[in-house]
Amino acid sequence: MFTQETRIRVRYSETDQMGVVYYGHYAQYFEVGRTETIRGLGLTYRELEESGILMPVIDLAIRYHRPARYDDLLTIRTTIKDLPGKSITFYSEIDNDQDRLLTTGHVSLAFVRKASGRPCAPPAALLDRLGPYFP
Amino acid sequence: MFTQETRIRVRYSETDQMGVVYYGHYAQYFEVGRTETIRGLGLTYRELEESGILMPVIDLAIRYHRPARYDDLLTIRTTIKDLPGKSITFYSEIDNDQDRLLTTGHVSLAFVRKASGRPCAPPAALLDRLGPYFP
Amino acid sequence: MFTQETRIRVRYSETDQMGVVYYGHYAQYFEVGRTETIRGLGLTYRELEESGILMPVIDLAIRYHRPARYDDLLTIRTTIKDLPGKSITFYSEIDNDQDRLLTTGHVSLAFVRKASGRPCAPPAALLDRLGPYFP
Amino acid sequence: MFTQETRIRVRYSETDQMGVVYYGHYAQYFEVGRTETIRGLGLTYRELEESGILMPVIDLAIRYHRPARYDDLLTIRTTIKDLPGKSITFYSEIDNDQDRLLTTGHVSLAFVRKASGRPCAPPAALLDRLGPYFP
Repeated sequence: MFTQETRIRVRYSETDQMGVVYYGHYAQYFEVGRTETIRGLGLTYRELEESGILMPVIDLAIRYHRPARYDDLLTIRTTIKDLPGKSITFYSEIDNDQDRLLTTGHVSLAFVRKASGRPCAPPAALLDRLGPYFP
Repeated sequence: MFTQETRIRVRYSETDQMGVVYYGHYAQYFEVGRTETIRGLGLTYRELEESGILMPVIDLAIRYHRPARYDDLLTIRTTIKDLPGKSITFYSEIDNDQDRLLTTGHVSLAFVRKASGRPCAPPAALLDRLGPYFP
Repeated sequence: MFTQETRIRVRYSETDQMGVVYYGHYAQYFEVGRTETIRGLGLTYRELEESGILMPVIDLAIRYHRPARYDDLLTIRTTIKDLPGKSITFYSEIDNDQDRLLTTGHVSLAFVRKASGRPCAPPAALLDRLGPYFP
Repeated sequence: MFTQETRIRVRYSETDQMGVVYYGHYAQYFEVGRTETIRGLGLTYRELEESGILMPVIDLAIRYHRPARYDDLLTIRTTIKDLPGKSITFYSEIDNDQDRLLTTGHVSLAFVRKASGRPCAPPAALLDRLGPYFP
């Protein structure tokens, strides 16, 4: 298991007229969490993509417990619970700065070769870095 | 059961560097589908909100089967399968203009009184309009 | 001079906690206006891009006269006032459904060869279609 | 004159199929710059709004010199050059992590009383904090 925490501050643009963060923007917060989780492993998603592998999302689920508000400082806790196979799943929890749990969810992504558009195995670099956390 | 179809064209802003629609934007497409579904019932979501009832999203799930691309003309098919109680669930399917199924998902929303922030019953106007479709 | 009108309906996601459309989203409305203006000329921006020409934005200006609100049906009036040279400028005006002028602005875009990233002349197809409007 | 620097990292969601940050998203970057500039003065925009004053944008201008890319670490330099009167103008410059200037622009905002929707004077707290920088 590998867990990474990331902090982001809610932007004005992310609120809607209900006065809270629009429900669709959590997908972006989860994505920031994934980017920083891969960086926490010593890689970057940018490099993975430049090496010719794309990771399209195939599945998303979010539960909304409490709303986030403008200027809230959020903690995104992203966890990889299983070594990737045909796909990789990132589990996310978002807390506000009073440590109240706002949102939980998960995103699954496939591995696809950029050149062919065909499914492929997870990048060796990613498996190498994850190995020590799944003894 | 009540079903409504809505058409939208993919905007350039909705693509990402993978060359397809960013996964988070489908939440917006689903929302457009809900707005038009309520209009199809002879109401507007704007009026529901102005009457003092908010409908925050409590649950979202999306499966991504095929990507949508810039300038694609999409059909969003939104279905209400059950009369609302504490919440209402909208099921969505998105096709492209070759009738290929791109995305499926559902969104559940609660009913909350704007003034108090407390849960409340579904608006009578909504139940009245839905009644004939759930004999 | 060539003018094209396009209609869009304001999405909930486009509002912010001030209860009006977030100021940054007008850039997307202008972009929808450009896409439909090029379609109105008998071309598509998608084809221009597939033919190997990108049109990055180099300049944007917007004046906000009155706010747009959720579910408003907007008319975007997009005008090309000059034949493109090194760049092309689209002028935009947005009205609401009470014919009140909400926003004015313009966007200038360069022409760049996708393969080289270098500036290039406007696509011949675009000049051909625009010619009759600039006698 | 008062200047504040803020750092943000480009999100995947902010790119488009041209492989660079979508031109409309710079409005959000400028907004993050404004939020942090006001915090740098010892206030928060959230508090200003909660005190009953809204600051709607009335004017936006952006020049795009070079593109920002996914995962770039950007520096937003926001400057207030004049004491606010009927409106306040924030000037913004965005650099990437090679210190290349990507974008310049400015945004003007009015002061409006939330209760009445009418123009009003700048909040006293804001003028107090800015005073020492405009001797």
